[in-house]
Amino acid sequence: MKHNKMFVENCWYPAAWEYEISAADNKLARTICEQPIVFFKTESGEYCALEDRCCHRAAPLSMGKIEGDCIRCMYHGILYNTQGECVEIPGQDTISNKFGVRHFPVCEKGHLLWVWMGNPAQAHTDDIIDYPPLSDPQNWRGFATPCYLHYDANWLLIVDNLSDFSHIAFVHTHTLGGSESYAYESVPEELEKLPNGFRLERWHYDSLPPPFHAKVLPAKERTKNVDRCNRVEMYLPGVFLMDTIFTSPSKSKSKGKQDCRQYRNCQYMTPETRHTTHFFWNYLHDQDLNNPAISESLYESLMAGFMEDKVIIEAQQKILQADSSFDPCFILADKALSHFRRLWNDRLRNEAAQYIPAQVTESKNRIL
Amino acid sequence: MKHNKMFVENCWYPAAWEYEISAADNKLARTICEQPIVFFKTESGEYCALEDRCCHRAAPLSMGKIEGDCIRCMYHGILYNTQGECVEIPGQDTISNKFGVRHFPVCEKGHLLWVWMGNPAQAHTDDIIDYPPLSDPQNWRGFATPCYLHYDANWLLIVDNLSDFSHIAFVHTHTLGGSESYAYESVPEELEKLPNGFRLERWHYDSLPPPFHAKVLPAKERTKNVDRCNRVEMYLPGVFLMDTIFTSPSKSKSKGKQDCRQYRNCQYMTPETRHTTHFFWNYLHDQDLNNPAISESLYESLMAGFMEDKVIIEAQQKILQADSSFDPCFILADKALSHFRRLWNDRLRNEAAQYIPAQVTESKNRIL
Amino acid sequence: MKHNKMFVENCWYPAAWEYEISAADNKLARTICEQPIVFFKTESGEYCALEDRCCHRAAPLSMGKIEGDCIRCMYHGILYNTQGECVEIPGQDTISNKFGVRHFPVCEKGHLLWVWMGNPAQAHTDDIIDYPPLSDPQNWRGFATPCYLHYDANWLLIVDNLSDFSHIAFVHTHTLGGSESYAYESVPEELEKLPNGFRLERWHYDSLPPPFHAKVLPAKERTKNVDRCNRVEMYLPGVFLMDTIFTSPSKSKSKGKQDCRQYRNCQYMTPETRHTTHFFWNYLHDQDLNNPAISESLYESLMAGFMEDKVIIEAQQKILQADSSFDPCFILADKALSHFRRLWNDRLRNEAAQYIPAQVTESKNRIL
Repeated sequence: MKHNKMFVENCWYPAAWEYEISAADNKLARTICEQPIVFFKTESGEYCALEDRCCHRAAPLSMGKIEGDCIRCMYHGILYNTQGECVEIPGQDTISNKFGVRHFPVCEKGHLLWVWMGNPAQAHTDDIIDYPPLSDPQNWRGFATPCYLHYDANWLLIVDNLSDFSHIAFVHTHTLGGSESYAYESVPEELEKLPNGFRLERWHYDSLPPPFHAKVLPAKERTKNVDRCNRVEMYLPGVFLMDTIFTSPSKSKSKGKQDCRQYRNCQYMTPETRHTTHFFWNYLHDQDLNNPAISESLYESLMAGFMEDKVIIEAQQKILQADSSFDPCFILADKALSHFRRLWNDRLRNEAAQYIPAQVTESKNRIL
Repeated sequence: MKHNKMFVENCWYPAAWEYEISAADNKLARTICEQPIVFFKTESGEYCALEDRCCHRAAPLSMGKIEGDCIRCMYHGILYNTQGECVEIPGQDTISNKFGVRHFPVCEKGHLLWVWMGNPAQAHTDDIIDYPPLSDPQNWRGFATPCYLHYDANWLLIVDNLSDFSHIAFVHTHTLGGSESYAYESVPEELEKLPNGFRLERWHYDSLPPPFHAKVLPAKERTKNVDRCNRVEMYLPGVFLMDTIFTSPSKSKSKGKQDCRQYRNCQYMTPETRHTTHFFWNYLHDQDLNNPAISESLYESLMAGFMEDKVIIEAQQKILQADSSFDPCFILADKALSHFRRLWNDRLRNEAAQYIPAQVTESKNRIL
Repeated sequence: MKHNKMFVENCWYPAAWEYEISAADNKLARTICEQPIVFFKTESGEYCALEDRCCHRAAPLSMGKIEGDCIRCMYHGILYNTQGECVEIPGQDTISNKFGVRHFPVCEKGHLLWVWMGNPAQAHTDDIIDYPPLSDPQNWRGFATPCYLHYDANWLLIVDNLSDFSHIAFVHTHTLGGSESYAYESVPEELEKLPNGFRLERWHYDSLPPPFHAKVLPAKERTKNVDRCNRVEMYLPGVFLMDTIFTSPSKSKSKGKQDCRQYRNCQYMTPETRHTTHFFWNYLHDQDLNNPAISESLYESLMAGFMEDKVIIEAQQKILQADSSFDPCFILADKALSHFRRLWNDRLRNEAAQYIPAQVTESKNRIL
């Protein structure tokens, strides 16, 4: 069991949408924090996550076969239960207690499977940051198939991106932003620092609705100015939740419900490796719930915008990877991301301080 | 001349089927044990192996031209004989005795070209492990074109695979194995340890013929149970030879010839690099020799099975390469592979102990 | 600002043909000596080269927008002038003087943009090695679009190639050379060593015109022997200029103009990285200037020849990269390349000796 000091381990990470596992024959190979894992659903419907490497000759269990509540390695037939214990070795009767693979606690919330990468004794499912709109089809309608994107970038670069909305003026001028003026006219409210993240609110008063919103408005409303509010929450390790509210212009923050059109958005950034990221998201609306054209239009608009982010963030990654000594210059808008990176680094330092490295004896049996 | 302590050098390695060289204009670039070599056949029909790097500016001789018993580098025209000595430099009359490239002893046996990677003075062609069925068309019929596969895996992982036949129950259930029961019902006989390899015999009594065999049987025999015997020999560096015998069931090992259907199989694993392997093989039968449909059916069945191995072995390689500290857990079936890896490591250690490193003086003339 | 001791910095490097910048929306991302640079042309027509990395979060300026005489980073809108100074940060009024990116002097000569990689105070545009034929359409006709090739090889391997013309006998037998006899019969004149390069002349008397030349000759001249002269100049960092002259055979170097057919050729090798090269070239002739068929034929012949070089040089690169300890054996024909490599190494050593490393304080703010 290798302790990877690059990632906080005592932490729930979003690992997969439920449908990703069922679509892959109930068995999904996915690396989280540089640890290859097989996620699977047993025949009795339980989710399970095991180290994706048979303890015998290192074959991947994700190429194995689910049998009842177990998974069998299909190289030499070694069988593991959901706790990673070895329960059968074909052709021999006894099983040494050294046999077994690492087990990771998992839990499903909001159709998302979460995995705990640290000490299982500290895994409490109440600590998972659930997002109620994902489980509230009476009030919120998202995409039938929530989205997954793979990023060739460190997940904190995506967290940075979402921590400062001034970028929507430049990166998303013609999709999510509407104009460069957003960066000059709108002002973020005071940053609310939390022990595990931050909250931030940003109003843009009396301006045209941005393209993604205009497209789902009745024709006569598309050219009427609105007030726009983005209420952002960001939590460790990389959980982004946002209320977006459009009202008629009044230069005031108190709004009655009848005047509002609202969106709910969640985005989850989970490190695959130090250089690559699993990105999960959904975008939900509260208008005319049974009209699928609204979700379809939002999907198209948002995906176009997210691709704009992906292009610039992956370009950043290449530049930083080529010369990681880069020392950034800070602007006022960096307050939130600086706070978040500080929290992450503090957690990382704390875990490293408490970490007692395993006694490593040089293996005589290395097979590569 | 660099001594690569990763590979045993005083050893004959299978390097190419003869037809591979003739099909490539009598000149084949192939790396053996991380040493790039040009194999070629002179105009007088002699095989030759030279370091594939001109001593002048490092151009590959495999891009050169065979001229009589020599090969000419087609960058600046430097000409080498089969011993790697430089015999002409265009535009100058004298040749320093520093000029030349390394020469490797080669020998053809069984239509396979073998190369000696170590001290030429110790190269004795009698030490080559010839496989008589390859040169015995009266009694054995193999593929018209013997097979070559390139593996993205260390060659010892393929040796491991072939050292324990219990895997055919799981990896090859529907091709070479027949059922998972093979792993439970058949028992390998006592391992016969040899100073340069091992012998192993494994019987599976009174079971249906496996698919690859059933397909070439007369229709009425396909559903009749058989006894199946696999007699395996494995020799350093990676030579696998196997007799496969099917007889009518009798729970006894003594069989008369009239009752037998037999196969002969050779598989050769030669390291290209520490992470990649040249894999040569043929599969010969003794029934109805002039019916090409038998070889065609066997080729199809065996290739399907070998691809199943390739997928899982290359997956192992990726996992081990990502974390080479992996410490395997051993099962009873690992006795043969453990013995073989011990022999290899002993040879490697012995060669390293006798090795006197060349005095290296820092070059002032590096060109890269 | 990292000092890269692998490349001479106080030196003008060919960076791009003018048309490459205009064809790319006046903005070209190109790495020179492992330094990513954005080259652009301002709205007032001035060329400019800046470090291609915003000082804020490392986004590439080459994905930015030209505004008047400035370029704006299109991530968070930071604006830079042609000197790399930050002149606007959206959403904040003050700009710390730490903000800015590195600026590189540039200059256009012969439709080629040159960049100075070292101390701007030492950049004098008179030091650029201009090639007059590139700007002399009355007397010389080249390709309408001068050529660019990308090499997967260290640029000095291409310099080596061009420093010894004996290779045309073997690499270009059927394109630029004509026969292998060129290597045996023609003799290079005494090497003229210069403080920043060399000059070399090589005559091949009374032989058939080589294929590239024969193809543009009147039919009756194609089989008449000629004297052929190559006058080569090579300058640091990788500037190759060549006069090629064909006359009727006379075994004498003094020729009247009426008897000559001449070519002018420039080739520029600029390191992109230690392992890759930007290669710029043009080939000009002095016959029947307004007949485009001549340039078209020359383009086809020369490109075929240059591809022959590229194949062997990229093969050399792979071999040398796999084992960079290679110690070459020298032949008489290596005099010119040895001199040139000595000049380069002397310059490199001189710059390194004068170099005062910046005080580097460990960054607390690394973002990757």
